[in-house]
Amino acid sequence: MARLVLKFGGTSVADVERIRNVARHVKREYDAGNDVAVVVSAMAGTTNQLVEWTREASALHDAREYDTVVAAGEQVTIGLLSITLQAMGVPARSWLGWQIPIRTDDSHGAARIGEIETDMLNTRFAERQVAVIAGFQGLGPDNRITTLGRGGSDTSAVAVAAAVKADRCDIYTDVDGVFTTDPRMVTRAQRLPRIAYEEMLEMASLGAKVLQTRSVEMAMVHGVPLCVRSSFDDPDTLKPFGQEGNETPGTLVCDEDEIVEQQIVSGIAFARDEAKITLHRVPDKPGIAASVFGPLANAGINVDMIVQNVSADGSTTDMTFTVPTIDYDRAMSVIRDAEDEIHYADLTGSTEVVKVSVIGVGMRSHAGVAAKMFEALAGRGINIQAITTSEIKISILIDAAYTELAVRTLHSLYGLDETT
Amino acid sequence: MARLVLKFGGTSVADVERIRNVARHVKREYDAGNDVAVVVSAMAGTTNQLVEWTREASALHDAREYDTVVAAGEQVTIGLLSITLQAMGVPARSWLGWQIPIRTDDSHGAARIGEIETDMLNTRFAERQVAVIAGFQGLGPDNRITTLGRGGSDTSAVAVAAAVKADRCDIYTDVDGVFTTDPRMVTRAQRLPRIAYEEMLEMASLGAKVLQTRSVEMAMVHGVPLCVRSSFDDPDTLKPFGQEGNETPGTLVCDEDEIVEQQIVSGIAFARDEAKITLHRVPDKPGIAASVFGPLANAGINVDMIVQNVSADGSTTDMTFTVPTIDYDRAMSVIRDAEDEIHYADLTGSTEVVKVSVIGVGMRSHAGVAAKMFEALAGRGINIQAITTSEIKISILIDAAYTELAVRTLHSLYGLDETT
Repeated sequence: MARLVLKFGGTSVADVERIRNVARHVKREYDAGNDVAVVVSAMAGTTNQLVEWTREASALHDAREYDTVVAAGEQVTIGLLSITLQAMGVPARSWLGWQIPIRTDDSHGAARIGEIETDMLNTRFAERQVAVIAGFQGLGPDNRITTLGRGGSDTSAVAVAAAVKADRCDIYTDVDGVFTTDPRMVTRAQRLPRIAYEEMLEMASLGAKVLQTRSVEMAMVHGVPLCVRSSFDDPDTLKPFGQEGNETPGTLVCDEDEIVEQQIVSGIAFARDEAKITLHRVPDKPGIAASVFGPLANAGINVDMIVQNVSADGSTTDMTFTVPTIDYDRAMSVIRDAEDEIHYADLTGSTEVVKVSVIGVGMRSHAGVAAKMFEALAGRGINIQAITTSEIKISILIDAAYTELAVRTLHSLYGLDETT
Repeated sequence: MARLVLKFGGTSVADVERIRNVARHVKREYDAGNDVAVVVSAMAGTTNQLVEWTREASALHDAREYDTVVAAGEQVTIGLLSITLQAMGVPARSWLGWQIPIRTDDSHGAARIGEIETDMLNTRFAERQVAVIAGFQGLGPDNRITTLGRGGSDTSAVAVAAAVKADRCDIYTDVDGVFTTDPRMVTRAQRLPRIAYEEMLEMASLGAKVLQTRSVEMAMVHGVPLCVRSSFDDPDTLKPFGQEGNETPGTLVCDEDEIVEQQIVSGIAFARDEAKITLHRVPDKPGIAASVFGPLANAGINVDMIVQNVSADGSTTDMTFTVPTIDYDRAMSVIRDAEDEIHYADLTGSTEVVKVSVIGVGMRSHAGVAAKMFEALAGRGINIQAITTSEIKISILIDAAYTELAVRTLHSLYGLDETT
């Protein structure tokens, strides 16, 4: 039989009734003879409340104490789920990060998972016991609780799956899988039966909120097949892993070469959380970029897209870049403070921009994807303010008002619209 | 300088603002140069919510999972208090039961504390760091979280105080100390500056809700001076331990011989949570008590007061006893099921009774305390339905309607009324 790790997020365990639903998913896989480990988040809203309390206690707080507070949420869920499973006749026990232990480094609040001891888990699997594991938390080298950062339960699940050599890691969420784009914007968006790790990685970091970026990286490195699927499906009508009908319960995130009918473009992502800043007529000389981006880096502000236009007169240049919207005001004041070193003629900016990205491993072997994109957008009168590209994605920055038009245009352009 | 353990209950840490108030109490003692460990409960309401969820999950649940769930409340409080203390410039760190560890037996849900390792706590005291310790929880022999039962944080505090050899354990609560009786019933009730361990033990088990019984036992065994005091006093106007004015901040629970002006009776307690059951005309022969109380013991029902009247005819007897009110219906049905063995003529009972107790170590050396009591109550027309006595207390069972009259009468009788 197979070995599975199932992960359920906060909305899937929001109350005891939903936890019962989760238990039925677990029971289905367990009754089919599979070894099952479940990784759960805190009940929806709990972590936000705990974070809020730490902020009320002090704006600047010890990350070790923060971790102690916020890790309490998962502790509640694993106990409740274990009780519920036992009541359904499924042997189960809860495991806290420190009990397994899931060892991490000492970066409290954003810890990285190191070694996970599997002896006890394996023993319990052999005894046909389900392991109910607290996501988001681990044990630091100082014997204190660490947490992995928001959305860290996905990473916990993948790390456990890699450690116990699971056949698949199922990420149950509130959507049916990974879509070609956000179905709330484009009704003809389609669920992707499969997507390559690298595409998923780009999707995750470019605004698709389905999976935590780090969890996808880890799945890719360890070759853990990830299945993104809905926790709201009726647990009893679904087929367990390994039985016919379970081939594509959602979206399988896997190796590129396991995808037979690879499209050139797999999906369109968009992110509204970047803001644009333009420095006008800065001297076009060596060291100018450093004088702009050095102070921003020192302030801990991540700069994403950067565009520098060659100037007409050859002595000045316009420089545009993007920063996270939440850092926009701070970035503007950092730049103003550095005015004496930068010598810009004018400083403008806007939060009314959106980054739209087309993603697909097929781009590697197909030329002209970008050209086609720019042409289509131009045809719709959409002005491109900045561009960045990688091997498998092209991102553009446009006026936020054109978001839907741009996404719909590109979705049709690359043949992603569902045909009914 | 001295070493102190301060304990704060749920209402004292109900929100971040109150936690800040707690931190000011801690800071006062810390700034005076004392070593300070703080033991805290979960925020008021939290534990009830967690218990409720475990019940919703399943009426019958694994006590180990129950403990995992309910121990989460204290984890939140220790983190928040540590953050708050740090923000006030007081070095502090949180300690979970498993981190110290506070070792317990494996009686999940009602565990007993065994050994507490103190090396790390002592090291941190030497570094002038406050230890913020989760009450109510420990680490079982199976490496799982245990809890000590409701009110267990008092016991945690006393156990820590005994382990680190504290000079005093201050139990901060929502009252000013221990009173001669409940001030809500008798306005002339007085705060006792001192009370003997044994008296406090009787008070605690007879209805005074100030301290958990087990914590008093443990304080008595280890000779830990306990101070019951209010957490709602302004922390900054109080004197720290060891400074003049701190002699009697509430009630000191201590050895009998440390109390100079010992009264005959120290307090009047009353408990409404017992119910009375009477078996009429049972055969007056050996083994009859066993046939009654055996089945009750098997059902896990604690019998408290027992009165057996000698019968007029010498062949039958009336037997009256009390059980906790919550077990009343169950006890009645256990007795009915055993009717064939007991052969009673009639079975009656009432939950409309109250147990009133007078307590005082001075009784040991004074005769006539009981006679005076019965006389006074008779003078008020109060019928006594059952009596139990120990060396230092007399408890009577009366009709609940006479509670206030009886308590007021006894309070005056033994000279406990405050003279203004």
